[in-house]
Amino acid sequence: MTETQQLIQLLTRFRDERDWQQFHNAKDLAVALNIESAELLELFLWKSPEEADRSKVAEELADVIAYALLLADKYGLDISEIVKDKVKQNGEKYPVNKAKGSARKYDEL
Amino acid sequence: MTETQQLIQLLTRFRDERDWQQFHNAKDLAVALNIESAELLELFLWKSPEEADRSKVAEELADVIAYALLLADKYGLDISEIVKDKVKQNGEKYPVNKAKGSARKYDEL
Amino acid sequence: MTETQQLIQLLTRFRDERDWQQFHNAKDLAVALNIESAELLELFLWKSPEEADRSKVAEELADVIAYALLLADKYGLDISEIVKDKVKQNGEKYPVNKAKGSARKYDEL
Amino acid sequence: MTETQQLIQLLTRFRDERDWQQFHNAKDLAVALNIESAELLELFLWKSPEEADRSKVAEELADVIAYALLLADKYGLDISEIVKDKVKQNGEKYPVNKAKGSARKYDEL
Repeated sequence: MTETQQLIQLLTRFRDERDWQQFHNAKDLAVALNIESAELLELFLWKSPEEADRSKVAEELADVIAYALLLADKYGLDISEIVKDKVKQNGEKYPVNKAKGSARKYDEL
Repeated sequence: MTETQQLIQLLTRFRDERDWQQFHNAKDLAVALNIESAELLELFLWKSPEEADRSKVAEELADVIAYALLLADKYGLDISEIVKDKVKQNGEKYPVNKAKGSARKYDEL
Repeated sequence: MTETQQLIQLLTRFRDERDWQQFHNAKDLAVALNIESAELLELFLWKSPEEADRSKVAEELADVIAYALLLADKYGLDISEIVKDKVKQNGEKYPVNKAKGSARKYDEL
Repeated sequence: MTETQQLIQLLTRFRDERDWQQFHNAKDLAVALNIESAELLELFLWKSPEEADRSKVAEELADVIAYALLLADKYGLDISEIVKDKVKQNGEKYPVNKAKGSARKYDEL
């Protein structure tokens, strides 16, 4: 088993021990992911990037990753595969010669 | 190297080839993570949970994970470690005997 | 009719002409509000606060307000009343003598 | 003064009494808006649309509107004007004969 498969096993076991599968439809998992992302973002509110508390970032980031992994599991998606596919796709949208040093979106390059 | 370390290597290489490190401060990475989470959520808008397009979910989820991994890298956090720590912590907040079958928040259990 | 009541009338008429009331349950309206907020936030991504495009901000902000008004309508809430109530409540959480010049959350003041 | 101008006056007075203008750049206001939208959304998490607590919805919605109004003030935007402009624009993107009874996005109509 890969690292993310092991984490998914840990998370689904935690979920099943609590009979939470009934609540974990894909839409609510996506809602939960958004809420956790916002809690992570809140650590930076009214602050410069350096001022966020590292240990709180770790906690909120863990929540984000947990829901992302549960969503991947829901759809039977392999983390490495989807990330590699997306990086490839982004390589075409953002070719080095056009995108280098630019923060523009691909449709404005 | 573990799976997530390999993915982080892939992502930071992609970033560095494009000189994007200058834009990738922790706050903007957290902002980007929120935007990608919302794009994922949009696939479920006005729909029942089953109606989202699986291949689009894969793409948007990949973006979410990419920014989560870049944030972890920014703070030198190990994915497995922070997820395992959080699951442990949640086990104390949500003991099986209290949380079983309930969708309530820990402070309402 | 007040200004926000007039806007709500405009928005619900637009919705009803298109038979969209069937999709506009409160949960999906809250989801839509989050998506629009993220689109607004995207105008600031990788940028300093001054660099966002004002006319695009106007458009995305209008979408945010539209869904906020539709949610208020859904629950029969009066905009002025709920905002005034919240400001009052915040005045107690953030008394001037404690909160002046500080960006801390009320539970850390 | 219109209703939203009065609310903006209330909110900016509250802000200025606390010397908070220094924190309220447009980007952080957009971040705050996203956080409040997510707190509103959390009231619906793992629930059917009808199960959210109306008085909590009122509170979180007030926060969303407050930051939306502060952003409008930041850019000197008139709420009624931008909402009316957007409704007009949406009328072109979603003509009644095409959009009636459909939840599709304009580019899929």
